[in-house]
Amino acid sequence: MGKRAVSSEAGVLERIERAFGWGSLSRAGRSSGLALGTGDDAALLVPSPGHEVILTCDWFLEETHFRRDKDPADAVGWKCLARAVSDIAAMGGVPRCFLLSLAMPKELAGRWMDGFLGGLKRAATRFGCELAGGDTTARREMLINIMVVGEVRTGQALRRSGARVGDIIYVSGRLGEAEAGLKLLREGAKKLNARDPRLRKHLYPEPRLALGQWLSGRGCATAAMDLSDGLSSDLARLSAASGVGALVHAGKLPLARSEEINRTRDDRLQAALHGGDDYELLFTVAKKTALVLPKTLAGVTITPIGDITHGNEVLIENRGEKNRLAAGGWDPFKF
Amino acid sequence: MGKRAVSSEAGVLERIERAFGWGSLSRAGRSSGLALGTGDDAALLVPSPGHEVILTCDWFLEETHFRRDKDPADAVGWKCLARAVSDIAAMGGVPRCFLLSLAMPKELAGRWMDGFLGGLKRAATRFGCELAGGDTTARREMLINIMVVGEVRTGQALRRSGARVGDIIYVSGRLGEAEAGLKLLREGAKKLNARDPRLRKHLYPEPRLALGQWLSGRGCATAAMDLSDGLSSDLARLSAASGVGALVHAGKLPLARSEEINRTRDDRLQAALHGGDDYELLFTVAKKTALVLPKTLAGVTITPIGDITHGNEVLIENRGEKNRLAAGGWDPFKF
Repeated sequence: MGKRAVSSEAGVLERIERAFGWGSLSRAGRSSGLALGTGDDAALLVPSPGHEVILTCDWFLEETHFRRDKDPADAVGWKCLARAVSDIAAMGGVPRCFLLSLAMPKELAGRWMDGFLGGLKRAATRFGCELAGGDTTARREMLINIMVVGEVRTGQALRRSGARVGDIIYVSGRLGEAEAGLKLLREGAKKLNARDPRLRKHLYPEPRLALGQWLSGRGCATAAMDLSDGLSSDLARLSAASGVGALVHAGKLPLARSEEINRTRDDRLQAALHGGDDYELLFTVAKKTALVLPKTLAGVTITPIGDITHGNEVLIENRGEKNRLAAGGWDPFKF
Repeated sequence: MGKRAVSSEAGVLERIERAFGWGSLSRAGRSSGLALGTGDDAALLVPSPGHEVILTCDWFLEETHFRRDKDPADAVGWKCLARAVSDIAAMGGVPRCFLLSLAMPKELAGRWMDGFLGGLKRAATRFGCELAGGDTTARREMLINIMVVGEVRTGQALRRSGARVGDIIYVSGRLGEAEAGLKLLREGAKKLNARDPRLRKHLYPEPRLALGQWLSGRGCATAAMDLSDGLSSDLARLSAASGVGALVHAGKLPLARSEEINRTRDDRLQAALHGGDDYELLFTVAKKTALVLPKTLAGVTITPIGDITHGNEVLIENRGEKNRLAAGGWDPFKF
């Protein structure tokens, strides 16, 4: 693919379609149930019998969510899809296709866009989520909106609202790793390699699709959501949706192994509680079911971190002291 | 609803939900087949048996697509949904629900947002298209992305690619009215009333849902699309998708009655050929079927404006002279 910029919308579309391996504007991948891809007024999806359709969308905006001078184009492409697909994982669903809305400076439509499309295509292949259409326009800054469509067997979607008093609260993976990676990238004096494992979780998050599907298929989670804004904010949402309280044991949290970035245990605890962008799953399981859960589900470590309680407060127990856990995660509208 | 600005994302969401008449974050309108609306990780849609799902999305960005100092907030709310729903009309489908992605300055989250949500809600009610979810974030400028989901009976979707040599080309309504309204609003010295009928097509476009559904239900259009960028650009797309040429008769075009805005016939012809945002339908009909078509379909005037031809050129015949009709409509990436 050439490095020149484009001078028409058709040129941008052609570039996208070439990156996704399409021969023409009107062809689409029929294998995934897409009757019609880009090149018409809209895409057509053939829904699977016995399933509900999952719909979600996510902003990914320059300056707000990523920085063009810090985040490689390839990672921007990967992450914009990964974070939207994470909502499908949180519902226990299977991704089907996505729409890409792209507003960008004309001068980025060359090399930068090729890098971006490369990361996006790899993510799409990994998650089994096909490009079905979208909208493009010119703009000073890079603006991305990704709309993902998934499916889940009727009645099996994981919701935020089903947690009951006595349930055990679990998280997958480690918390605060993305925050540590972000800190390293923003504050790191040295030029870093995008493949540095300390940056992986920030640049190339992995939606927990297999875990979400396992939980929904077995019907063993009473509630679930993905951790995008930070545990303290997201657990408050799950508790509110379920009409319950929660108690988190600080000592049980699977902290990031980021000793050289977050020096003290307390720094790592703060990152685990309030750091965003981990895209791990937060879910609750009835006590009886929890007794028989293994430590790893669908290839991912899961850790019990607390209990669902009466009331509506989210508390944290740290070294024997109980305090209210204030929502300290990411909130774009906070002053 | 109060006029104060918000200081958290939850405050923005609450405002949206109140405008749409919801009691709580987790309730949704089950009547429309939404199993789950805003307030969870994603929305769930129960697809109708025997139907395909139509997916489309559209940018609506401050400065690029609208101006906050010229376009009333209410009209911004109406139009952002109307133009996305127009893609559903172009496929012959029925809208089901939409996702709203909103990035906005905090200080607009008061009065401006109430106006915006008022127009959006009226449009949603008019088009039978329910709010199912979305994403919000803070941003210097107002950025909107609307994702609409519709349905169409399997196999009945109207496509761009079916036009055949000899087919008659039709458009609905009049062309160039939105462009004239835009011109009046941008250049008009006087303060204009948003209800001024000359501004209606620019501020409050009506997607041709009934016409699209009529055409797909009867199976009498060989190809169809909506006119969003201008006839000259959009007809070139339909021709290319169908692998045919087209001949437009200038004398047959239903020009806007905008004599006081576009003084000469040629000004009005240029607006009809290249003006964007009309959201009328462009469709082709086999000659035999065209013979029995009435002048009005589903309440909308339809006008035959030309013929599908051999080759791949789009030509225009004006006062006996035939010339190539260059795509002169809206292209955000054109230098």
